[in-house]
Amino acid sequence: MKLPLWFLLVALAAVGGTSLGAAERNVVLFVTDDQSPDMGCYGNDTIQTPHLDALAADGVRFNHAFCTTASCSASRSVILTGIYNHANAQFGHEHSYHHFRTYDHIKSLPVLMAAAGYRTARIGKYHVGPEAVYHFEKTLPGDSRNAVQMANNCREFLSDDDKRPFFLYFCTSDPHRSGGEVPGDPYKPNPFGNKPNGYPGVTPIKYDPDKIRVHSFLPDTPTCRHELAQYYQSVSRIDQGMGRLVALLKESGHYDDTMILFTADHGIAFPGGKTTLYEGGMRIPLLVRQPYGEAQDTQCNALVNLADLTPTILDFAGALPKKHDRQGRSFLAALQEESPAGWDEVYASHTFHEITMYYPMRVVRDRQLKLIWNLAHQLPYPFASDLWAAPTWQDRYKQGPDTYYGPRTVHQYIHRPKFELYDIQADPDEAKNLIEDPQYADQIAAMKKKIKAFQAKTKDPWILKWDYE
Amino acid sequence: MKLPLWFLLVALAAVGGTSLGAAERNVVLFVTDDQSPDMGCYGNDTIQTPHLDALAADGVRFNHAFCTTASCSASRSVILTGIYNHANAQFGHEHSYHHFRTYDHIKSLPVLMAAAGYRTARIGKYHVGPEAVYHFEKTLPGDSRNAVQMANNCREFLSDDDKRPFFLYFCTSDPHRSGGEVPGDPYKPNPFGNKPNGYPGVTPIKYDPDKIRVHSFLPDTPTCRHELAQYYQSVSRIDQGMGRLVALLKESGHYDDTMILFTADHGIAFPGGKTTLYEGGMRIPLLVRQPYGEAQDTQCNALVNLADLTPTILDFAGALPKKHDRQGRSFLAALQEESPAGWDEVYASHTFHEITMYYPMRVVRDRQLKLIWNLAHQLPYPFASDLWAAPTWQDRYKQGPDTYYGPRTVHQYIHRPKFELYDIQADPDEAKNLIEDPQYADQIAAMKKKIKAFQAKTKDPWILKWDYE
Repeated sequence: MKLPLWFLLVALAAVGGTSLGAAERNVVLFVTDDQSPDMGCYGNDTIQTPHLDALAADGVRFNHAFCTTASCSASRSVILTGIYNHANAQFGHEHSYHHFRTYDHIKSLPVLMAAAGYRTARIGKYHVGPEAVYHFEKTLPGDSRNAVQMANNCREFLSDDDKRPFFLYFCTSDPHRSGGEVPGDPYKPNPFGNKPNGYPGVTPIKYDPDKIRVHSFLPDTPTCRHELAQYYQSVSRIDQGMGRLVALLKESGHYDDTMILFTADHGIAFPGGKTTLYEGGMRIPLLVRQPYGEAQDTQCNALVNLADLTPTILDFAGALPKKHDRQGRSFLAALQEESPAGWDEVYASHTFHEITMYYPMRVVRDRQLKLIWNLAHQLPYPFASDLWAAPTWQDRYKQGPDTYYGPRTVHQYIHRPKFELYDIQADPDEAKNLIEDPQYADQIAAMKKKIKAFQAKTKDPWILKWDYE
Repeated sequence: MKLPLWFLLVALAAVGGTSLGAAERNVVLFVTDDQSPDMGCYGNDTIQTPHLDALAADGVRFNHAFCTTASCSASRSVILTGIYNHANAQFGHEHSYHHFRTYDHIKSLPVLMAAAGYRTARIGKYHVGPEAVYHFEKTLPGDSRNAVQMANNCREFLSDDDKRPFFLYFCTSDPHRSGGEVPGDPYKPNPFGNKPNGYPGVTPIKYDPDKIRVHSFLPDTPTCRHELAQYYQSVSRIDQGMGRLVALLKESGHYDDTMILFTADHGIAFPGGKTTLYEGGMRIPLLVRQPYGEAQDTQCNALVNLADLTPTILDFAGALPKKHDRQGRSFLAALQEESPAGWDEVYASHTFHEITMYYPMRVVRDRQLKLIWNLAHQLPYPFASDLWAAPTWQDRYKQGPDTYYGPRTVHQYIHRPKFELYDIQADPDEAKNLIEDPQYADQIAAMKKKIKAFQAKTKDPWILKWDYE
């Protein structure tokens, strides 16, 4: 294994007694809300994300990063613990009557970072609980729809002359759907947080619906294009926030000693994305910009998921014991290679979104195949309130159950089989379920075994459904 | 309305300035675990419950008392808040990975009693959380399978010369199923907590399986009879605990100024009882022995449920505001009448038992009809681990799906329709679903409306399922 440059620098510093040391290993974890990898650096030439692209050019872009569950609270609990949500008890939403709560005994990332000598702060979206489990020393104020303002509000924290290194958890509410509809637009798209008068410090970047690249799992309709134009605008607002944050890191003198991770809790807020474990829900952006000019403008083909973030960050901070209780793995060493060995498989596990939306799914996915187990397949697939109301969905739904919504009909989308097997390479939109194809029988049997082993290893209560029902 | 005697005594005391007053209105709430109304005072001439019968003879026996959910944590949260479990967030079990938690903002019965000047203690089974919500000043030790020992452990609390009145929450683990099987019994019944060497201070009362009165919703098989004999023995242990508790209340001089409520969280732990909202799950014993010799040896035909306990107890304590936020109603005044007006309908609401057992049901029941809405009827009915393992169930289940288990086949028990309507008077075992009978169409429509109105009034998140799915 190639030793990372920062390691050598820190080692040298330790020997030489210069000022370089633990204090120089700061961390910014930037998490957006319901965003698929729609950015210039992921090959989209319409959307404008120059600052995110610059970050990618200065770091590592993951080509195969996934969430473990495409639901906000559940996924964030995985991000901040490195433990699957079926094992940390954040089975679904934290807020309001959903009222899911992580186990009190779990030590989360901010708590472990604080114990490792870091000062910690969070800003923006939170959506996990209880607070004692996910405690940050500071909660910075800011409009979570205005990442530029949020960045400005971090200025003092970033430039504080506190001797401890910092851990900043920066979460936008963009590009989540918001309330209402875009005034004057005949297709009545959701505004995705965009406002007629914009946001202070943000330059609104508007998109021509005709020039949008419609995701192949979505219906290429005018309504969808108008919705995606709003979503793009929301993403560009995030981009400006990242630009401002990087500028402030540079101003504070910390750009060169800070690891910046950029990702999303899960995919885009459209049926077929969010709440599903289809690729539209699972695929997320992940950029890791390492300090000291490590691995600039590289790609990494490792299959990683959000359970890996906490161990990776702890590893970077020198706070990951060799034997640890996290279910994810540190990919810190893998950052040095384009195609590191041993990263060819990911798992996903979804149980609830809203408390009324019981729909447990367990998934194993390798580079070619993906097996989805829908444990409550007898139920109609439940809809998050924002996805049910989505004009793109309603437009298709109202045309009847045989209408196509992306690769499958409305009826097929709502009524799913117990198992789904897809050849992701040949069929990236997961249109053709191969579960009955005898050619795959051995692979299916092996993948079911893998799911069960994963459940046993990660203490999944739903493992009992193999034997009962 | 006839004024209760204690009210007059207290009023007189207030006028006369004697020592009678709030301090003389103590409360004991005695709750057993998974017990149907199987007691001598409910007409069972085999089971030996002389102390419970004596309590009934000294108070009011409710003929139509029901739980709101036949699941332990959920039901106890209703007992202790007067708020349905769909509205207090204790949607299912509190312990282990189920991890359901009541809202932090809810003021529970012990907290309100403490605020009203009571000293509070609990002993035995608890099974709700968080502790801060359900805080008692004292937790008394004791083996929850030995109600005699538990009573003895309350002696000091009962006779304390603290000037405040007391509220004692006394919960047995009897007659819940326990582990293992009865040694030497060829039918391998569950021991229901019975032990070969018994319990200190308890005289084991054993039953001849041939003389058991088998509940009509259970299969009359040797296995079931042997299981029920164990259950009876467990109930007789409770009875002795009640005897000891009453003796200690008399010893302390408080029998005459204490309201004693005896009930269970829900019905018997057999398929067809616990976890269902059939009569076997919903029907519970309820005895209310009032102080000052009020309403001795009377019956009450009011339909009441466990959501009514908290308001009733607060009312008795003088701590129920006219406008209150409890979803149950005080039946304090109804205790004075055999057939009080306005108590002709109850509701029930079940959502989870274990976290993996999603099976929401909503029920309205009047004196003749009962409508059950199975919201997730597409799923197989989920089994609590103890009920699945129950020898009585396994014995029938292994004989195949068309085998009768009580009034319905194994297949029918597991696969339920969306709605079930029963004429409880003509068909108390709920064998014949009348939902398709056109004769009942108007009543069905009216009862569906009532369920929806109940959901709206009690803030039930699942109300949305009327419109979606």
